[in-house]
Amino acid sequence: MPNAIEGGLPHGGRLQQAAREYGIAVSEWLDLSTGIAPWPFALPAIPVSAWARLPEADDGLHAAACAYYGVEQVLPVAGSQAAIQVLPRLRGPSRVGVLSPCYAEHAHAWTQTGHEVVEIADQQLEAQLDSLDVLVVVNPNNPTGRLYRREQLLSWHARLAQRGGWLVVDEAFIDITPEHSLAAASGREGLIVLRSFGKFFGLAGARLGCVVAAEPLLQALAEQLGPWTISGPTRVIAAHCFAALAAQQQQRQRALQASARLATLLSEHGLTPTGGCGLFQWWQGERAAEVQRFFARRGILLRLFAQHSSLRFGLPADDAQFQRLALALKERVDE
Amino acid sequence: MPNAIEGGLPHGGRLQQAAREYGIAVSEWLDLSTGIAPWPFALPAIPVSAWARLPEADDGLHAAACAYYGVEQVLPVAGSQAAIQVLPRLRGPSRVGVLSPCYAEHAHAWTQTGHEVVEIADQQLEAQLDSLDVLVVVNPNNPTGRLYRREQLLSWHARLAQRGGWLVVDEAFIDITPEHSLAAASGREGLIVLRSFGKFFGLAGARLGCVVAAEPLLQALAEQLGPWTISGPTRVIAAHCFAALAAQQQQRQRALQASARLATLLSEHGLTPTGGCGLFQWWQGERAAEVQRFFARRGILLRLFAQHSSLRFGLPADDAQFQRLALALKERVDE
Repeated sequence: MPNAIEGGLPHGGRLQQAAREYGIAVSEWLDLSTGIAPWPFALPAIPVSAWARLPEADDGLHAAACAYYGVEQVLPVAGSQAAIQVLPRLRGPSRVGVLSPCYAEHAHAWTQTGHEVVEIADQQLEAQLDSLDVLVVVNPNNPTGRLYRREQLLSWHARLAQRGGWLVVDEAFIDITPEHSLAAASGREGLIVLRSFGKFFGLAGARLGCVVAAEPLLQALAEQLGPWTISGPTRVIAAHCFAALAAQQQQRQRALQASARLATLLSEHGLTPTGGCGLFQWWQGERAAEVQRFFARRGILLRLFAQHSSLRFGLPADDAQFQRLALALKERVDE
Repeated sequence: MPNAIEGGLPHGGRLQQAAREYGIAVSEWLDLSTGIAPWPFALPAIPVSAWARLPEADDGLHAAACAYYGVEQVLPVAGSQAAIQVLPRLRGPSRVGVLSPCYAEHAHAWTQTGHEVVEIADQQLEAQLDSLDVLVVVNPNNPTGRLYRREQLLSWHARLAQRGGWLVVDEAFIDITPEHSLAAASGREGLIVLRSFGKFFGLAGARLGCVVAAEPLLQALAEQLGPWTISGPTRVIAAHCFAALAAQQQQRQRALQASARLATLLSEHGLTPTGGCGLFQWWQGERAAEVQRFFARRGILLRLFAQHSSLRFGLPADDAQFQRLALALKERVDE
């Protein structure tokens, strides 16, 4: 039988593939290859009707999402990836700047749709901004962890918007530090904020994201995506998680602590992070590919960014996982 | 707060809306407005990891789907609707015939993508076929229930394919009578078969469908849709259901019996079906809109096709539901 067909680019989280490549059973791996919180939110009971019936748009998810994001309008989508695929279809041929390195699907989607894409380093942006129709920023950035200030982003948006341009801010990792989000500002035309559900809530398998933007743009997105894009059970658990304020607070604290502990641990073993945020640490170094294989042979999966010779470390979930990582780090130093 | 935004056209299954319109609580309705089997398959236990982790394409769903459809290659998608949205983007400007009346999202999607769409009645097809680039057929058709023979469809396909054309066969309701499916024939170029998971397995909230076609077309579809389109829990339950052969046999028998019983009941009360299939009956008549409202006032939701003045009746699940429908039918006759 041929292999299963997959859209998109290579990403973290591909344990089945790693298991085959390294001859280590899936259950034996410590997967630190993603930036997903390793503490999935407690799941509510899911009524059979959520599986059996077609999902309905007015079932409570929309209201819960609006409250969580502090906005008047939002479009839930089947993962922010679904919006990334479709956004480029809502503009005529454009010059699109992507602050790089960042999550590679942005440049890929705009390129595939026929736009002109330029990958821009932070220090080049000022010189390039007025030549762009669209600017894509991941904030905090993945994998570098760089955080852009709200005022900075809003000033870039203003310069783009006065020429009919867009600022797309992918806030997939911002829920740990929501005070930096532009969601509440995104009623203004040409400001499009993408939010991810799975990373912060630790439920990436649910496939949910939200787009916050002016309503006509959300309408156009919904028209591209069609009806019933989100599974019924996902709608039930997301509405529940969006309202679980105490658990959200706990998740933020837990992630910040684990991320700081991870940074310290890496620094103590010669891998001082180049950057990071509340959900991962990032290390850049000449031997990144070699380091990735070293850990993989010990059943610890990291995400290699070969083009930028760097590694992303997701958060260990508990002391045992920290100890396993520490042991491998020590072996490497001792080698 | 503004209403939730929805893509697509009006459809059956909108109980929240019906509840508001008729002042009847959601829990009080008998929803016969869809063609979804009213007996959801038993759900296996879902490991938390299916919710927590990103879904992986090689997790077993692909193999189970191939076995169920009797094919070598298949692309699972988030409902056949997801494929309907995207298929029109894989062709340059085309003349697209849609055998009508049928599921309205086909014509809508091709039109929205800028193709020329002609709605064609069965008896006009022979004269029009050689002017088309693409022909879309729903088989068995929704809502008419009309079943097209395999030989007929393959001959239409051959005529289209020799000019680089496509035959798209939407087999959303064919699982009751799988001997009529073209899935196993769809390795040939220009034959695209869409299958729905939710209708036969009674799990429409799962959001799953499968596309069977030549591999390059599936690759192009996957590229449009991007990675991780299907939720992890849906992948788990679908792999389980695809392998549950005895339960599938029971579902087929149960649906055929209920559909026949429904046809008899409607006939006995002056609504002799104009057509139907294993998952619904269809009645066309001048007073369709009035009949729909008559039942809705009694908390029985039917699907009205206003343009063709007709009604679709989904299957009642059990004796109690049949009796409730029978009572309303009798009231109507007595009025």
